[in-house]
Amino acid sequence: LNGISQDSDLLKLMPFSPSSSTQTQQDLLLAAAYVYDAQYNRNIPFETSPQAVRLYNLYNHWAMQATTYFFIFVDLSLAVFEDPAVYPLPFLATSLAEVLCLLVFFGRLVHFAKVTPRNVFWKDTKNICIVIAILGTLIDLIIYGALKISNINSVRWSRVLRPVFLINFAESHQIRKVFRSIRNTLPEITYVFLLFMFSVLMFSLMALKLFGDRNLQTVEGSPYFTNYLEIVFDMYVLVTTANSPDIMIPAYDISWLYSLFFITYVVIHTYLFMSVFLAVVYNNYKKHLKNEICKLAYMKRRKMVEAFNILKVKEGPEFVVKEAQWKELVKRVAPDISTSHRELLLRVSDDEQKGYVDKKSFVRLADLLNIQVIAMKIQAHPLENWMPRVYNSAASQCLRSMVKHRGFVWTYDVIILINAIFIALDERNPLISYAEWVFLSLYILEILLKVYTYEPRAFFAKTQFWNWFDTSIIIAALVATVLNTLLKSTSQYNSQQVLDIVFILRVLRLLRIVDSIKRFRVIMTTLINVVPTMLTFGELVLVVYYMFAIIGMELFQGKIQFFNMNSTAPLALVCGNPALKDSQFAQGKYCVNNFNDLLSSFIVLTELTVVNQWHTLANGFVLVTHQAAKLYFMAFHIVVVIMIVNIFTAFILEAFYVEYSLEKSDVESAIERKIQELGVGIQEEELCDGKLIDNMETNEHDLGGEEISKKKSKGLMFKIASKKYRTVDAQLQRMFEAEIPPDDEGPSLDEILNLSPADVYPKNPTFDSVA
Amino acid sequence: LNGISQDSDLLKLMPFSPSSSTQTQQDLLLAAAYVYDAQYNRNIPFETSPQAVRLYNLYNHWAMQATTYFFIFVDLSLAVFEDPAVYPLPFLATSLAEVLCLLVFFGRLVHFAKVTPRNVFWKDTKNICIVIAILGTLIDLIIYGALKISNINSVRWSRVLRPVFLINFAESHQIRKVFRSIRNTLPEITYVFLLFMFSVLMFSLMALKLFGDRNLQTVEGSPYFTNYLEIVFDMYVLVTTANSPDIMIPAYDISWLYSLFFITYVVIHTYLFMSVFLAVVYNNYKKHLKNEICKLAYMKRRKMVEAFNILKVKEGPEFVVKEAQWKELVKRVAPDISTSHRELLLRVSDDEQKGYVDKKSFVRLADLLNIQVIAMKIQAHPLENWMPRVYNSAASQCLRSMVKHRGFVWTYDVIILINAIFIALDERNPLISYAEWVFLSLYILEILLKVYTYEPRAFFAKTQFWNWFDTSIIIAALVATVLNTLLKSTSQYNSQQVLDIVFILRVLRLLRIVDSIKRFRVIMTTLINVVPTMLTFGELVLVVYYMFAIIGMELFQGKIQFFNMNSTAPLALVCGNPALKDSQFAQGKYCVNNFNDLLSSFIVLTELTVVNQWHTLANGFVLVTHQAAKLYFMAFHIVVVIMIVNIFTAFILEAFYVEYSLEKSDVESAIERKIQELGVGIQEEELCDGKLIDNMETNEHDLGGEEISKKKSKGLMFKIASKKYRTVDAQLQRMFEAEIPPDDEGPSLDEILNLSPADVYPKNPTFDSVA
Repeated sequence: LNGISQDSDLLKLMPFSPSSSTQTQQDLLLAAAYVYDAQYNRNIPFETSPQAVRLYNLYNHWAMQATTYFFIFVDLSLAVFEDPAVYPLPFLATSLAEVLCLLVFFGRLVHFAKVTPRNVFWKDTKNICIVIAILGTLIDLIIYGALKISNINSVRWSRVLRPVFLINFAESHQIRKVFRSIRNTLPEITYVFLLFMFSVLMFSLMALKLFGDRNLQTVEGSPYFTNYLEIVFDMYVLVTTANSPDIMIPAYDISWLYSLFFITYVVIHTYLFMSVFLAVVYNNYKKHLKNEICKLAYMKRRKMVEAFNILKVKEGPEFVVKEAQWKELVKRVAPDISTSHRELLLRVSDDEQKGYVDKKSFVRLADLLNIQVIAMKIQAHPLENWMPRVYNSAASQCLRSMVKHRGFVWTYDVIILINAIFIALDERNPLISYAEWVFLSLYILEILLKVYTYEPRAFFAKTQFWNWFDTSIIIAALVATVLNTLLKSTSQYNSQQVLDIVFILRVLRLLRIVDSIKRFRVIMTTLINVVPTMLTFGELVLVVYYMFAIIGMELFQGKIQFFNMNSTAPLALVCGNPALKDSQFAQGKYCVNNFNDLLSSFIVLTELTVVNQWHTLANGFVLVTHQAAKLYFMAFHIVVVIMIVNIFTAFILEAFYVEYSLEKSDVESAIERKIQELGVGIQEEELCDGKLIDNMETNEHDLGGEEISKKKSKGLMFKIASKKYRTVDAQLQRMFEAEIPPDDEGPSLDEILNLSPADVYPKNPTFDSVA
Repeated sequence: LNGISQDSDLLKLMPFSPSSSTQTQQDLLLAAAYVYDAQYNRNIPFETSPQAVRLYNLYNHWAMQATTYFFIFVDLSLAVFEDPAVYPLPFLATSLAEVLCLLVFFGRLVHFAKVTPRNVFWKDTKNICIVIAILGTLIDLIIYGALKISNINSVRWSRVLRPVFLINFAESHQIRKVFRSIRNTLPEITYVFLLFMFSVLMFSLMALKLFGDRNLQTVEGSPYFTNYLEIVFDMYVLVTTANSPDIMIPAYDISWLYSLFFITYVVIHTYLFMSVFLAVVYNNYKKHLKNEICKLAYMKRRKMVEAFNILKVKEGPEFVVKEAQWKELVKRVAPDISTSHRELLLRVSDDEQKGYVDKKSFVRLADLLNIQVIAMKIQAHPLENWMPRVYNSAASQCLRSMVKHRGFVWTYDVIILINAIFIALDERNPLISYAEWVFLSLYILEILLKVYTYEPRAFFAKTQFWNWFDTSIIIAALVATVLNTLLKSTSQYNSQQVLDIVFILRVLRLLRIVDSIKRFRVIMTTLINVVPTMLTFGELVLVVYYMFAIIGMELFQGKIQFFNMNSTAPLALVCGNPALKDSQFAQGKYCVNNFNDLLSSFIVLTELTVVNQWHTLANGFVLVTHQAAKLYFMAFHIVVVIMIVNIFTAFILEAFYVEYSLEKSDVESAIERKIQELGVGIQEEELCDGKLIDNMETNEHDLGGEEISKKKSKGLMFKIASKKYRTVDAQLQRMFEAEIPPDDEGPSLDEILNLSPADVYPKNPTFDSVA
């Protein structure tokens, strides 16, 4: 099997062939830009002059995008080098780096302004955000620099704006979509939140009246429920459950009836209200997701129609695109796909081989290009070519059938389990450390046997996730173990880092057993499909954490110090701050949790996200600063735990729902039908089991056109890439597109951009949509 | 306004009128039973002999149902009196009570067996469960009693079976539905759980290898990550987040890189896996909900068709039910509805007044009966009748229009806010305690003014939730305050209980402000709609807690003692058990959390559900018993936190989704159209604003049949009861029914009972059903 070619990620700027006229070339260039945009769901309106189109293609070039991302990364990581720094650098160096970044961002923005129509450019919030962020940062830099020269310390407030570039330059619209979704959900969430806070305030008032006059004490000996504002904070903490059941114990000690007060409170606030928050976020997420996808789908349709209108010629009663033009276009849009793949797409588009593609089929082109069709050459094992006699001998055949046998998998599952036991046993026993070598060689032997049996290029195909996983883990483990042994024997020095990596790799090997059990494999597939959107959430979390970390560092920097375990510093036990004496923060040895650099800040914020001991951490920082610092922690809780975590959950819910109702799209079926019709298809299972060649021998139909059958004799086969690994968004978009009638060109551009959820959301939901 | 009559909740056994033949009477009786079943979604097949039908009606009689519930309650509450008891009773007393309960249950079961066909009876799991539970309890009682006589103590294991009666005798099928849903979700959840546990075990192995040999110590000074089983438990606790970030601190102190290990762990297990659990539960909940509702809807249709077939007569080309028969039937099924209401239903069913009801309309009868139509007599204010001159005087008119003015509401909102401040201030100041009397009189004045302005019977209508709430809170507050003052002045004795109630009532009064803001009212309405199903979850939680409490009491009873704060007992600080010395359990003063009686057990289980300090509680009980006790706590966590809490969340999600897509049903529209046609309708807003009478004066159309117009002259009006307050289940069922074509009688009875989700779940989901 060979030549697994897939859609390229970029539009190569091909030189014009001298035979055709400039006008035609320019038309093709413009049409190609439209199709390319439709294929990659770019939501950018651009000028149609040849100059602008060429600039637009340059704008989309991968190198330009990579440069932008690089400078965004540089800009964000400046916080690591700025005071308070992990690795300090002088202000001059960081500010010069920042100015450089700003220049690049400005250049990128100007480039974009040249491509897109003027009125559209200034209507787009993201451009305005970038302009404001650039200006703000410049002003701040100048003021801060001037003050620094006159030895006045001020606050670098513009650092909070840095994530703006990440959000607004991102090529993928995903992160902006999430932010739009948050903005849209905000009014509704706010009302629920107000009601929630009203309820918290009411319960706090009850607590004050019930317990305030009883002279009770908390476990730490401080007065219990006497100050209203402190009660409100305590009750808010109880919503996060961080101080349950401690907060209830003194009252419960008096009478069990008082515990009912707290239980009622927790049921209403922690369970009911938090579920309501999730429900509101989830419903809005769904609603706006549909709106966004609707917009995308209409935009795609519109761009394809534009491309068609440029290339169309009259043929009988209808307008069509000629085969030659079509081929030229596809070559331009997707220069990396093979000729045979292009031929296949043409056969799907021009079903009756009339020599032209009609509008309906043309509009589908973007989707056709998006479907990963894998073209494979049937090819013998390299060893078979090299020394056929040995490879086909009885012993070799026997070995290969052994490896293909189910028992082979089971044997290795047993080996893995035994390995797990050995890992858990004590390392220092020499017998066990030798056993490690045995296991390592067994695993290497397994990979070698498999490569011997199956065709290596099929074994290491892009879609064979687990083979890649196995091999890389084993090779890494081999390298690390050898390195470790070398270090040990030569220098008697046992590197802890290398050893740690060896340990982790060893345990990760056990993960393979998951792949042997089908039920687990299914769950894993869903989880792997979720990964791309998880990355979007990673970005979102990064943005929010970054902003809170910058603010946190300004507020709490240096207030809490971490001393080494063996430190004899007088204030080591109170984290270098006498205010923390007898606090739970110091007693819990939490000194390492501080805002003294970006890294530490991120870890503290993670701990606050997990919520447990939230009040201990918050109180620690409040003690070293001011009561008002509580607001910082409450704001973080509201933003991250109430909004972001719920959005994450909403996404997982939606992803699983889509997985539950997975179906093949129309376009996919069309290609697959054509592949089957032409008799050049292979079943996925056949590839997975490596039985491809056996199958070929028995499957000798004679079908299809001249060219295709020629290819078939060369052993070329097609298959649609695994439907298993596909993002939730793509699946949703396909489902929606299936519902637009083929001749519906959708509303006008302005209407599309202003589409509101109410326009797309079902006004009369059917039962299917509900249950 | 008068005579707000609604559908009765029970089928009265009316005596036969002597004029009709016995056969007709028996037919009517049978048809009425069918319609009644359809109306109340009873899923019980019954014998059709007159004897069985009469027995069946008796079986459904409210007194019989109430008796059963009473004895279920008695049976469950026996645990309060059995050792370990809150209020101890001798074994003889409790065992006699239990035998009595069993007799009642057996009687009820025999009654049911007489009603339902033999083969259906023994196929029904719930009957078999009851039989087994009765037999098991009897055997256990005999063995335990015999051993007790010979002074051997054994375990009353059958107490765990008691909730079986609650589940299987419950008239509402809701709780059984939830259990079926759990059973159906179990296989899928199990696979995810196994994968989850595999991952926990793998990470624990990594932790052992990474930290085991470093001689680290936890904050409490115990060795850190050295024993594999303890690591697994610690890592499981970390999933609940109860020991975050403490578990990570010693490793983080060495290097921040190790914190990545824990953060990765938390992201994968606490966020990803827990969301996956929720997603699996939610999807299965949706799937099975639809299946159950489908069954119910088909069953209802089938029963209505049966009833029709009994009563039908040939009229022209089609079979119909004669008006007289129809009226007789409705009288029997819903004896409580007024004649005019029945007339209205007839007009809806027999649209063209042909004197008979056709099949299509007849089948809708159950739904028609289910719609709460409120018939109201337009009636003047009693004061207007009593002393018209005073009531209609200029001063009175002015007062009334003042009360109706928006400013009146705002004034009272301001008063409430001022009241809130006064509540927060110190009670002991005499001025403030007098102010309380002022506020109380202001509130009473408000209610009196409103009753003076609006018609009292409209003001206190069933649907006026907030009026009822206000009035009862104010009256209760008045009574409690007076009582408290009396107690104080007469005996100088300040009853804390009464005072507590006064405080709570005072604060609850503030809740009224929610009703003034429309956005809040909408959220509250949704929350109130959720209440009925919340009760089902209450039942579910009760069942699970009861079982765990019984087991917990057997395991941990007496191991931990609670001593009063001022106790001088030597072991008071270690909860009466030396094993707890230096434990976090004793340090946190958790002694009050124990399994020494049912009440305490329930409170401990609630704390375990909230999860925080889960490990402190669990470790405390492990210290006083055995390591294996950890399994009890882990089992509780899996069942309650992973299953039940997720089901709760799934339900809230679904409820909000349904609220988002709320629509009026077909049948409702039909009635409403007819009401409007007849000109006897009133708008809901009019009623709410109390403007009903004003409206009547201007709205003098003359429409409708003779009888109706007669009624109208008497001031009788109809309206459909508020659509706002309606359970999610009912809404879902209506949505589904709207999709069944009117002439589809559904599959056969056996098919209905065996309907699987795959049959109803959409195989080709449309976009609407996804986004």
